Amino acid sequence: MLYFEILKKDAASAARTGIIHTAHGDIHTPAFLPIGTKGAVKSVTSEELKFWGAEIMLANTYHLWQRPGDTLIYKAGGLHEFMNWKGPIFTDSGGFQVFSLAKMRKVMEVGVLFQFDLDGRSEILSPEKSVDIQANLGSDIALILDDFPGFPFEYERSKESIALTKRWAERAIKEHQKIVIDGDPINRGQKLWGIVQGASFSDLREQSAKDMVELGFEAFAIGGVAVGEPHEEMMKAVKAAIPHLPELSPKHLLGVGTPFDIVQAASLGCDTFDCVIPTREARHGRLYVSAKSEREAEGYSTMDIRLEKYREDFTPVDNTCDCYLCLNHTRGYLRHLFATGEPLAIRLATMHNLKFYLNLMQKIRKAISFDYFDDMLQYYKEIET
Amino acid sequence: MLYFEILKKDAASAARTGIIHTAHGDIHTPAFLPIGTKGAVKSVTSEELKFWGAEIMLANTYHLWQRPGDTLIYKAGGLHEFMNWKGPIFTDSGGFQVFSLAKMRKVMEVGVLFQFDLDGRSEILSPEKSVDIQANLGSDIALILDDFPGFPFEYERSKESIALTKRWAERAIKEHQKIVIDGDPINRGQKLWGIVQGASFSDLREQSAKDMVELGFEAFAIGGVAVGEPHEEMMKAVKAAIPHLPELSPKHLLGVGTPFDIVQAASLGCDTFDCVIPTREARHGRLYVSAKSEREAEGYSTMDIRLEKYREDFTPVDNTCDCYLCLNHTRGYLRHLFATGEPLAIRLATMHNLKFYLNLMQKIRKAISFDYFDDMLQYYKEIET
Repeated sequence: MLYFEILKKDAASAARTGIIHTAHGDIHTPAFLPIGTKGAVKSVTSEELKFWGAEIMLANTYHLWQRPGDTLIYKAGGLHEFMNWKGPIFTDSGGFQVFSLAKMRKVMEVGVLFQFDLDGRSEILSPEKSVDIQANLGSDIALILDDFPGFPFEYERSKESIALTKRWAERAIKEHQKIVIDGDPINRGQKLWGIVQGASFSDLREQSAKDMVELGFEAFAIGGVAVGEPHEEMMKAVKAAIPHLPELSPKHLLGVGTPFDIVQAASLGCDTFDCVIPTREARHGRLYVSAKSEREAEGYSTMDIRLEKYREDFTPVDNTCDCYLCLNHTRGYLRHLFATGEPLAIRLATMHNLKFYLNLMQKIRKAISFDYFDDMLQYYKEIET
Repeated sequence: MLYFEILKKDAASAARTGIIHTAHGDIHTPAFLPIGTKGAVKSVTSEELKFWGAEIMLANTYHLWQRPGDTLIYKAGGLHEFMNWKGPIFTDSGGFQVFSLAKMRKVMEVGVLFQFDLDGRSEILSPEKSVDIQANLGSDIALILDDFPGFPFEYERSKESIALTKRWAERAIKEHQKIVIDGDPINRGQKLWGIVQGASFSDLREQSAKDMVELGFEAFAIGGVAVGEPHEEMMKAVKAAIPHLPELSPKHLLGVGTPFDIVQAASLGCDTFDCVIPTREARHGRLYVSAKSEREAEGYSTMDIRLEKYREDFTPVDNTCDCYLCLNHTRGYLRHLFATGEPLAIRLATMHNLKFYLNLMQKIRKAISFDYFDDMLQYYKEIET
């Protein structure tokens, strides 16, 4: 069986629907990965994630390495057992957290030297170490450790980053073969994905994509985006990478994004996405509300539920939404929960926004399947401009 | 139909099982009321409460008066509609919060003058006002405004408090008749319960009980307990009040208590209980674990899940518990969620402790029904000493 199957290609764009086959089940793409950084999606149970239609979730190599430690999770039987999530798990390599969280960080050939944010200890995250941790976690999709510059992008620094990422990739592959293929790992079906870097420089993205293909990866993440660059720069990076990756390979866009980012990136051929936006926005009372164009193409608007105008609004947040919040409660009640600091407020808002994202992916898949994805994309462009 | 029916009396104590019939359904007693202070039980949905076996919940007159305001809730169609809880609701009178929360508080004949904690405004909560607010909330069980001293108890102050509570009760009854019986209220089935005060002075408790019976109340709360007094003082207060209240009336013990308090108060004839202990303890990682005596009588122990010793403990919190946490997760995982500050930690712990309390009430009812309540009571006494 192929690792990735394409079910339907969109006529007007590079969008497609497909299935990624993993050791813990299939993922229908385009798909969104709810983020369970430390082995739990904020205020959400595994059962709820499944019930809302999530087929895969993302956990964080760096955070789980720190606490509770990957060896503890190995003893528990792997992350699936530890957190009781039966579906596929995607783990990032820790590269992004070293980039965003470490107090001190020094990129060296051997790996990244950094200081832990919890106890001030210095440690090196090497390509091998990242693979080792992810093998202990037993995720279905593991990522190589990558190096990437922040925004604003600089050409020379970006050029170095793709070269270093390539050298690290070679070492990661060797380590992964040693542990996951020849050893006795938690999850023998774990697949290591390559990462394409190169900021928004087309020649670098092309080179990095070719490097990763040459190294033999069958699946790819596009990294170094969602680091503060404008939407157009992000799309430029995606456009430059995708044509140089095999069509029949799944492509993950790391850390992206808004509903518009996702719809547009899907139109460029991206298959999977992860982002904190739906859960983070929920914590601040910002909720997504479905909208439709005259031709019934799906779009959305947002609302800040904390506003005074919702005080006596006894209608649902989104009348077309099938989440528990929208089926059972009013805007006025949710506003009251936020106003009084009730923990249920964030729980209900998180539930709604995650369901919105998961429903969005289903709408994208349906639009591709039934040949109206271009209408949806155009409507999103109208909404955003 | 009688408001309260007794199903079974315990042979060895004053405990009994019964049913309170309300406009929103029956309550099987002895019963525990989860606390939804501001119209939501902390991090718990109405659906979950129902699913876990809660037949009634308690909301807070004072807090809802402040935010979002009882007139807003009236506009929403009452508290049942506002929070989407279809079962019976019990509202306290606000007297306890004025006692415990107000920055400034002055008890006068007209009512209690106090300063709102949110905006510094001074306001008077009178017996009539408390009834008006509760009528707007539309609860099934409303309480009269009462006056009571703190701990340590003083005789003269306590004597004044029962006299004032009686005078306030007369005014509350008149107001309740005007609004709920002769007016057009949200919930015509709302029943106003009297409150027995008198600290731990037997003669005062007796007098206060007789006052409330004389005023015509059919149901009673025992108040002024759980204010810092030792367990024995609390039980003394209950013992002094109960014999002077009609056997065929439901009796609520306000703000009580630990599992032991509840089992013992049930043995004295108390029918319903409300307390923040299960949810508050959950937030601090303290969980209840079932235990059994040699004769299979039910008891419990507690655990602090944050302790290091649970790090690699991959067993359930309570192997005999049927809550989501115990069915799906390990002690090690829950400890990890507490250690990393995941909001799911408190949600899962709250779920477990509330289910423990609701299961405890079921065990008490069963023990009374099948004539082994005395074994259960003796086992609880052993555990506590």
